[in-house]
Amino acid sequence: MPLRSRIDRAIHSAIADAQSPPAPPRLASALEYAVTPGGARIRPTILLSVAMACGDANPVLADRAAAALEIMHCASLVHDDMPCFDDADVRRGKPSVHKAYSEPLALLTGDSLIILAFETIAQDGGRDPSQALELVLTLARRTGMPFGICAGQGWESESKVDLSAYHLAKTGALFMAATEMGAIAGGQEAEPWTELGARIGEAFQVADDLRDALMDEASLGKPAGQDDLHGRPNAVTEFGVEGATQRLRDILAGAIASIPSCPGEAALAGMVKATADRIIPEPARHHGRPPVPGE
Amino acid sequence: MPLRSRIDRAIHSAIADAQSPPAPPRLASALEYAVTPGGARIRPTILLSVAMACGDANPVLADRAAAALEIMHCASLVHDDMPCFDDADVRRGKPSVHKAYSEPLALLTGDSLIILAFETIAQDGGRDPSQALELVLTLARRTGMPFGICAGQGWESESKVDLSAYHLAKTGALFMAATEMGAIAGGQEAEPWTELGARIGEAFQVADDLRDALMDEASLGKPAGQDDLHGRPNAVTEFGVEGATQRLRDILAGAIASIPSCPGEAALAGMVKATADRIIPEPARHHGRPPVPGE
Repeated sequence: MPLRSRIDRAIHSAIADAQSPPAPPRLASALEYAVTPGGARIRPTILLSVAMACGDANPVLADRAAAALEIMHCASLVHDDMPCFDDADVRRGKPSVHKAYSEPLALLTGDSLIILAFETIAQDGGRDPSQALELVLTLARRTGMPFGICAGQGWESESKVDLSAYHLAKTGALFMAATEMGAIAGGQEAEPWTELGARIGEAFQVADDLRDALMDEASLGKPAGQDDLHGRPNAVTEFGVEGATQRLRDILAGAIASIPSCPGEAALAGMVKATADRIIPEPARHHGRPPVPGE
Repeated sequence: MPLRSRIDRAIHSAIADAQSPPAPPRLASALEYAVTPGGARIRPTILLSVAMACGDANPVLADRAAAALEIMHCASLVHDDMPCFDDADVRRGKPSVHKAYSEPLALLTGDSLIILAFETIAQDGGRDPSQALELVLTLARRTGMPFGICAGQGWESESKVDLSAYHLAKTGALFMAATEMGAIAGGQEAEPWTELGARIGEAFQVADDLRDALMDEASLGKPAGQDDLHGRPNAVTEFGVEGATQRLRDILAGAIASIPSCPGEAALAGMVKATADRIIPEPARHHGRPPVPGE
């Protein structure tokens, strides 16, 4: 089964459980609204790719872990969109949850999805409780305090920011969760896989910076040039478009080099390369690439 | 060690872990603010009392479970106080978290505490992963959708309310979590302990109704007579003060009768009786009690 189908089926199954009677109907509907149609599902795709590279020892648990990670990501988007944070009216081309349902229901949707993420992993516990518990712990560490996405968001309320901790927690944490959880579900140690997740997260950060600098509002789906406008640190401001593009390619080369020895190492390297091609914005694709003979 | 000390020590230890560097300082401070000084810590007290009645097979895990349950309860208070719900300026005699820190930090505090609750249980997983995982699952079911406190709160956004599901989820769920998690940490099956939690929850609901009807704003610490004012279902409106007080005593007698056979059955029954005496508001204490000779 293609990865996307495995992921969507696992998410759908978790949401359906949470919607069972006697669930209050509007909140039940908001849970599904928040996770569909979904973006690229990039984090769970990385998780399953790592699990498969490790041999996919426990595919049911891997699917649950992938669903949990994406559900947690969606929860963070629902809360980030709320008026007290980004006050975003639109997400993935449709009204954000607080616009479509109300602020109280958006707050509860985020809370319920965070809880559902842990429940989804724990439900498969009978067969291998140690692995499931390690997945719970890893997901918690990469989402809460002091290392997770909550910590990342928390830095935005500080007058003096630890930039390295901020980026690692805000953008990197869920990618580290993806590779670590993939390894655990695949029956391997998590730690050797942390660097791959951190580097992929870093690459996404630079790709975001490039998109912010290069694309207009229409293609971006949100106001462009925001980093420059707000004086936020941005790889393009620091290195220029060519330098930032080269940096992105270097980071991904480092990511590929960091992949631990495993049965599916080559296929995983291919997946990371394909990701790189997808995330570099079109106007920057000709930069920082080795010349191709005859091109 | 007295239960209160065990509980406070376990909570403090969990919060201290979440505050470790590189945590953003204001969010780190808000986490501690949200769980201190704490109210009666009634839910973790019930949890530990049940674990001890079952033989307290794994006191470290029981302490972590108790801390997790109280941390989750505090998270729900932080989010409930926010402007889009109760818009409460004061909680436990000091400014609510969004008043003291800001709305974004209150939202993140709740999210971080929910995650910390699961992390706290999972951290002790090495020794008995099956028990720890069952605790994670039970806490999730009693807090998320469709049965937990999120579902309870969700019913308040519906035009047509399933009152039984609403009360069970809103007030009962964390008490059921308390008895079930106590049993699991004590090495027993959870299911036979569900009724005790449900009945204690019901008793607290009636006690709340009595307090709302009988006490003035000064003693209550919030506006009184709110149920009558908003036409909310209330045991006093339905049965009168005497009837509601008798009902509360009946429910607690039923709670005591439901305690499964276990080594510490008598001590646990004593704890439930003492709870009853504490939660019945002073003006109702002379109602519905069997006459005491010579009194």
